[in-house]
Amino acid sequence: MPKITVLRLGHRFSRDKRISTHIALVSRAFGADELVFDEEDKDVAESLSRVCKEWGGKIKISFIKNWKKYIEDYKGDIIHLTMYGLNINEKIKEIKESKKDKLIIIGGQKVPSEIYGLATYNIGIGNQPHSEVAALAVFLDRYHEGKELTKDQKGKKRIIPQAHGKKVEKTSI
Amino acid sequence: MPKITVLRLGHRFSRDKRISTHIALVSRAFGADELVFDEEDKDVAESLSRVCKEWGGKIKISFIKNWKKYIEDYKGDIIHLTMYGLNINEKIKEIKESKKDKLIIIGGQKVPSEIYGLATYNIGIGNQPHSEVAALAVFLDRYHEGKELTKDQKGKKRIIPQAHGKKVEKTSI
Repeated sequence: MPKITVLRLGHRFSRDKRISTHIALVSRAFGADELVFDEEDKDVAESLSRVCKEWGGKIKISFIKNWKKYIEDYKGDIIHLTMYGLNINEKIKEIKESKKDKLIIIGGQKVPSEIYGLATYNIGIGNQPHSEVAALAVFLDRYHEGKELTKDQKGKKRIIPQAHGKKVEKTSI
Repeated sequence: MPKITVLRLGHRFSRDKRISTHIALVSRAFGADELVFDEEDKDVAESLSRVCKEWGGKIKISFIKNWKKYIEDYKGDIIHLTMYGLNINEKIKEIKESKKDKLIIIGGQKVPSEIYGLATYNIGIGNQPHSEVAALAVFLDRYHEGKELTKDQKGKKRIIPQAHGKKVEKTSI
C-alpha cells in the first residue's frame, strides 16, 4: 500500500488552531500514515496524541523548517488540493492507479505559488471555495473508497455503532 | 430532488467561528439548499454571503431560537451525524432511496442527548473522532455521488481548472 503523508502549510497559530486540529484528526481517521506541519504547534500535536492514546492509531506527526526542500526531496506523487486544480472526479482513477507514495498538500489561500509547479497533481475537490478540512476528508474518502471508515484502530475504547444512542466498549488493549 | 437543510447546533462564538464558516461554505459547495444555526452569528452569515455574491449559489441561511421545536416540526428524514451512529457505508443506500427532504444535524461533542432519539438516522462518518466539517462534506459527497462538485454555481467569477496554475474567468452575470 502506498504510504500517505499529509503536509499542512501555512498554519497560523491562534487563528488556525482548531482547523489544524481538525486536519490532524481527519488525517488519522481517514487513513493517512503521517502528518507534517511547517510550523510547530504543541497543542495540535497534543490533541492528536490524546486521541491516539484513547482511540488507537499510529499516525506520526512531525514539524519541518523548510517546506520547499521537503517537497523537492519527496519521492512519490505530490497532490496539492486547491480549488484551482483539475476536478477530482476526473483524476481520482489515475491517482489511485499509481502505486507510488502520496504527499497530500493542504495549503489554503496563502499558499506560495511555487507549489502549483512542484505538485504532480493540483486537484480541486470541486472548484468552489470551501474548506481544507473538507477537501482532505473527501480526497481520502475517495482514495480509500470508504474502507478507512470501518478500520479497527485498536484503541483502548471502541464505539459499538447504534441506531439511537451511544455505546462505547473498553477493549483489552 | 429532496431539499437538503443543514442544522448546526451548539455553535460557540469565538471558539467556533471558523469551524462554522467552514460548515457554511461546505454546505454551499456540496449542494445543501439551506443552512440553519441555533445561535445568530453575523460574521458567519457575512462570510457566506460574500462567497455567494462572488462565486454564485443561492443557499439560504437562517437562525432559530428553539432547535427542539424545529426538529420536532421538521417533515422529512432527520440525519444526525455522530461518531456513535451506524456507519455511513451501511446506510447511505437506504438514505438515498428515500425521496423525503433531508435535515442534516451537525452537533459536536456537546450535542443534547435527545437528538439521538429525535433523529431518523444517527450516522457515523466512521466511528472515530474527527471533524464536523469533514463529516458533513463526506456525507454530502456520498449522497450526491460527487455530482455537486461539477455544478455551475453561476457566479460573477468562475474557475477554469488547470493542471498547474490558477485561472479565473469573469462571467457576464
